Amino acid sequence: MELKQEAQIFEMPHLLTYYECDETSHPSLSMILSMISMVSDEHSMALGMGTKEIQATGGTWVVSGYEGQLSAKQPSFGETIILGTKAVSYNRFFAVRDFWITDKEHQIEYARIRSIFVFMNLKTRRMQSIPPALIEPFNAPIAKRIPRLKRPHKLDEDASVIKKNYQVRYFDLDANHHVNNARYFDWLLDPLGRDFLRESQIKRFNLQYLQEVRNGEMVESKVNKLQKNNEKVTYHQIDVGEQLDAIAEIEWY
Amino acid sequence: MELKQEAQIFEMPHLLTYYECDETSHPSLSMILSMISMVSDEHSMALGMGTKEIQATGGTWVVSGYEGQLSAKQPSFGETIILGTKAVSYNRFFAVRDFWITDKEHQIEYARIRSIFVFMNLKTRRMQSIPPALIEPFNAPIAKRIPRLKRPHKLDEDASVIKKNYQVRYFDLDANHHVNNARYFDWLLDPLGRDFLRESQIKRFNLQYLQEVRNGEMVESKVNKLQKNNEKVTYHQIDVGEQLDAIAEIEWY
Repeated sequence: MELKQEAQIFEMPHLLTYYECDETSHPSLSMILSMISMVSDEHSMALGMGTKEIQATGGTWVVSGYEGQLSAKQPSFGETIILGTKAVSYNRFFAVRDFWITDKEHQIEYARIRSIFVFMNLKTRRMQSIPPALIEPFNAPIAKRIPRLKRPHKLDEDASVIKKNYQVRYFDLDANHHVNNARYFDWLLDPLGRDFLRESQIKRFNLQYLQEVRNGEMVESKVNKLQKNNEKVTYHQIDVGEQLDAIAEIEWY
Repeated sequence: MELKQEAQIFEMPHLLTYYECDETSHPSLSMILSMISMVSDEHSMALGMGTKEIQATGGTWVVSGYEGQLSAKQPSFGETIILGTKAVSYNRFFAVRDFWITDKEHQIEYARIRSIFVFMNLKTRRMQSIPPALIEPFNAPIAKRIPRLKRPHKLDEDASVIKKNYQVRYFDLDANHHVNNARYFDWLLDPLGRDFLRESQIKRFNLQYLQEVRNGEMVESKVNKLQKNNEKVTYHQIDVGEQLDAIAEIEWY
């Protein structure tokens, strides 16, 4: 197994565990997002920027959205995979980061995901400019134009909507005292039901985070299940009361 | 790092990930149980008994209970730990298995857990005798007497009881089409609330599974929070309707 490890690119091996996989024996989308967040943390740590160094700035990285494709063939538990990431480009407020998951010989690309990060001040809970000391070591180019992620299609309130409520639980919180980003995908997908989730496989997805969900809140997850030009697509929305927290769009094999 | 790998004993390294840890930066109890289930699977696979070979018998291993101690010092994410397991003894119906989690030099024992496994027929959903082909390769002694796990104290209905309901979700199911055993610990602990869970640390626990929880069911988690002879203890009960599914007892530092 050859791994790329330089300032801008970082790869690590990962033994896919039983509990990162769902009933299909393949990793759930929330676990895929958790795994890529792990390689992003490892990349930062390898460059001397662990959680302590980041938190010392008074802020934290926050993901504003994801756009990704999954191959029809997915890894199974017990398999060693490669998690990779690249710091693509950045400007004062946004940093673009790519992720990939491959088999251990780099022959099959199981997933390719792009995300955009912003930097949040932990006191004001507002966006602030990215501290140069946290971004320069990645050696990524400063971009005049930051590529935008595709915006998810909005939920169609006129079409049939499946709704389900989820109570945010203590173990949804991570060491950053936030609801783990990846957890949203469990809330997004669960309303589709066991039969749909066993028979369908995610082909591409995009998600936009709009507001933070907090401990103890009750979220409502709404879904449209649609057939569009021979494509099986679902539109998703997560909200707390009147406040829209996230929107997502998924295309299925 | 030295690892023991022989018929009866198996150890593996594990890089503790961000998402295996909770707000305290240490692994949650459900993740500790998930990790030891992983080393148990790896041990079986190393002896040529993967999920396929097990399922070919028409049955599956089921945990009937756990008894464990955690040290006051716990590992943090980013640390490489050792997961270990030993097939202790067995008879026709029960198999005793020990687990440990240590630092990578075997200097600190973070956790020591005993569990008893039974074998369930997947069609009848009833216990059956353990297929000899599945147990003999572990080279464990046949026991006349199987050590019993300490039975958890029953919930005290006369004391103050905290109650909370949890809907079983699709992603609680594992590749065995069961609710993952470890998930019970999230339901058990969550009613204790964020303040208690951030300030208290588990010292020892025991849990007895009585009935399977199924997809889509609504479980009720009930907890007594008590102070007994200078010990902080909690008694737990999980049920679905009138049916008792699990009881547990936890002592806290």
